[in-house]
Amino acid sequence: MHPTELVLSPRLRKTAFEERVFDLGVQSFTIYNHMTLPVSFSSNPDSYQHLCEHVQLWDVAAERQVEVVGPDALQLVELITPRDISKCAVGQCVYAPLVDDDGLVVNDPLILRLAEDRFWISIADSDVLLWVKGIAYGRGFDVKVFEPDVSPLALQGPKANDVMVDLLGESVLDIRFFRFIETEIAGTPVVLARSGWSGQGGFEIYLQNSADGLALWDAVWQAGEKYNIRTGAPNLIERLETGLKSYGSDMSHGDHVLECGFEQYLNVDKPAEYMSRDSIARVQKEGVKRRLCHLIAAGDPLPGLREYWQVIQGDQVVGRASSCAWSPKYKANLLFAMLSIDVSAPGAEVTLLVGGAGVDAVVCDEQWN
Amino acid sequence: MHPTELVLSPRLRKTAFEERVFDLGVQSFTIYNHMTLPVSFSSNPDSYQHLCEHVQLWDVAAERQVEVVGPDALQLVELITPRDISKCAVGQCVYAPLVDDDGLVVNDPLILRLAEDRFWISIADSDVLLWVKGIAYGRGFDVKVFEPDVSPLALQGPKANDVMVDLLGESVLDIRFFRFIETEIAGTPVVLARSGWSGQGGFEIYLQNSADGLALWDAVWQAGEKYNIRTGAPNLIERLETGLKSYGSDMSHGDHVLECGFEQYLNVDKPAEYMSRDSIARVQKEGVKRRLCHLIAAGDPLPGLREYWQVIQGDQVVGRASSCAWSPKYKANLLFAMLSIDVSAPGAEVTLLVGGAGVDAVVCDEQWN
Repeated sequence: MHPTELVLSPRLRKTAFEERVFDLGVQSFTIYNHMTLPVSFSSNPDSYQHLCEHVQLWDVAAERQVEVVGPDALQLVELITPRDISKCAVGQCVYAPLVDDDGLVVNDPLILRLAEDRFWISIADSDVLLWVKGIAYGRGFDVKVFEPDVSPLALQGPKANDVMVDLLGESVLDIRFFRFIETEIAGTPVVLARSGWSGQGGFEIYLQNSADGLALWDAVWQAGEKYNIRTGAPNLIERLETGLKSYGSDMSHGDHVLECGFEQYLNVDKPAEYMSRDSIARVQKEGVKRRLCHLIAAGDPLPGLREYWQVIQGDQVVGRASSCAWSPKYKANLLFAMLSIDVSAPGAEVTLLVGGAGVDAVVCDEQWN
Repeated sequence: MHPTELVLSPRLRKTAFEERVFDLGVQSFTIYNHMTLPVSFSSNPDSYQHLCEHVQLWDVAAERQVEVVGPDALQLVELITPRDISKCAVGQCVYAPLVDDDGLVVNDPLILRLAEDRFWISIADSDVLLWVKGIAYGRGFDVKVFEPDVSPLALQGPKANDVMVDLLGESVLDIRFFRFIETEIAGTPVVLARSGWSGQGGFEIYLQNSADGLALWDAVWQAGEKYNIRTGAPNLIERLETGLKSYGSDMSHGDHVLECGFEQYLNVDKPAEYMSRDSIARVQKEGVKRRLCHLIAAGDPLPGLREYWQVIQGDQVVGRASSCAWSPKYKANLLFAMLSIDVSAPGAEVTLLVGGAGVDAVVCDEQWN
C-alpha cells in the first residue's frame, strides 16, 4: 500500500475532541460524515488486545446526529425505515436500516427516541440530513430536521462499567442495553447510552456542546486511569469477530436491504407507511440474488483492502469481499463478502482474488462456524 | 500542523484514474464525495507556476454526477435552485447553487443539460443524490435519479487548447465556454466541456466507463507530452487569485444563499416553482447580516487553515476566515471570509486570529482591489 497523507482543511470538520486525539499520538484517520475519524494510535492487533481486556475512549464525533422533531416526526421516521419505530420507547435506541423506495440501503443508523416527537438518527457515513430533509419538504411534513451540536464519545471494553460507576455511581448499571438516560458529566449535559461499535460492552456518551469536549474527555480519562484506559478507535479485527458491518464498505446504496442480513431488524408488516414496502415485498417474492456472508480464509494474514476483492468459483465471478482482518481468536482471516445466493450457504468453497493471486475461503455462518 | 495518514478502504472510493495518480507520485489526498481527490504532487507554489504556464491533467473523478432523467426532470431541477434552468440549452452547463427551503446552500454544482429531459448535476462535496432523490420521492415526480458511472478528468492551463486540438482537431476550439459536445477519445465516449476549476482555461472530460479510465488518461497524457504536461490538482493559490469558492469551507449548509456572493447566478424572479423562493424574498426584504468577502493580509505567508480563523474588529468577533494562500501575483495573503455586513465593504480593516496572534487584514473587492 502506498503512503498517503491526508490534508486537513475546514471542509473536513474538526471534532470536539481533536486536541486530545493529537495529544495522544493519533497515527491515521479516515473521513466520515465530512469529519475526521481516528483509525489508529498503535497497531490493530495491539489495540485489539487492549480493547478486549481493558477499556478505551474513542473520538467517534463523526457519528453525527440528524434530529427530527415536531408533530410529524414519528410519521417521517417510520417512512424511512422498515423497522417499527412506534415500538421504540422514549429512552430506547434501535438499529434501523434506512431504505429508499427502490429497497436500497441509504444508511444503517441507531435511532434514539428522546421524546414522543423527537428523535436522533445517529448515522453512518452518508448525508442523511439531506435525505430526510428532502423527504420532509417533498411530503410537506410539519417537522424540523437539522444536525444538532452533538458529538458522541465511546467508552468501550470490559472495564467500561467500572469507569462509569466511578464517574456516576452504581445506578448507571441499571441502564439496559440499547437504552439511555440524560445526565451530566464534568458539568455538561450528556445523553448516556449503553451501546457502541464493539462487542466488548460499554457506553456512548453524547456531548451536547462542543465547547465542553475537552473537559468531558478529561473527566472520563481521569476516571479511567486506574483501569488502564487508552484511546483507540473502532477496531477492524474486533468488529469482524463481532460481526459488525460497515456502511459504505460491506453494504452501500447499491445494495437491497434484503441482501444485507438485516432480517432481525426489519418489521416488514408494521402498520405504518414506509417507502420501501413495495420493493421489499417484490424482492421477497422473487427471492434475493445475493447475500452478505461471512467468509473464513485460513493461512497467513491477508493485506488490507484498498478496493473490493473479487470472489470467484471456478471461472465465474460470484461476489466481492469488502472487509478482512486476521483474527487472533479464530487464527484465520475473517471476511465479509456479498456473494451470489447459490454460493452463500455455509460450507461453500470460493476463491478470493488478492492482488492477482487466488486465496481459498469458505463461507460460514454469522458465528464464524 | 501534525502529520496525518489517510487509511484507504473500500468506503473511500477508488477513482478510475488512481493507478496513474500513484504512478505519478501523489503526495496527499482529501476525501470528496466518499472518494479520493488528490491534493498535491509537488509544492503548491511549484504546481501553481506550472499550471499558469503550461497544462495539467487532474483526476477530479470525485466531482460525481447526479443524473436526473424523465418527464419531470426539468421541474425537479428547477425546484432545487433559484437559477433559471429553462434557459439552459442542451449542450450547455450552468453554475447553479442548490438551495433548500430555508434558503441554505446544499451544494454549488455545475448543471449540464444533456437532453430536454436529462441533466447531470456535477457536484461539490455533499450527497446531492440523497437530497434530490428524497425530494423526487416526496413530491412523486416521474424521474429517475441516480449516480451514473461518470468520472471527470480535467485538462487545465494555457496549453490545454493545443493538447485538445492535437487529440481531436481544430473544431474543438468551436466549443464555447460552459458548452459541451459528445465525442470520443481513445475509443471511449466522453462528454467534453469547456470548463474547469481554475481560471487558466481548459476542458473537463467526462469519462463514461470506469474501465476505460487508464486508456483515456494515457491518451491525453501522450498528447500533452510535447506541451510539458504534468499532473496536479485544483490549486489553492490559483483558486484564490481566480476567486473560486469551495463548498464545505467557504460556504456550507449553514449559510444563506444571499450571503455567499451568488447574485449573478440567481434568477430569483424566474417563472418556475423553486423551494427557496420564500426564504430568499424574506431575506432580501430584511437584508443580509453577513457576506462572503475577499480579504488581503500583507506580510509573510500565513499557515494553512485546519479550522476557521476568527476575524475580529476591536474586541468584537465579526466573522470567520475559511481559505488562505500567499499569492505570487499579489505578493500578499489572499483570503475568503464570511463577515458581518457592517465590516464587509472594501477598505474595512479587521484582524485575523491565527494561532492566538493577531494579523491585520483589509476587505477588498472581488478583483482583489
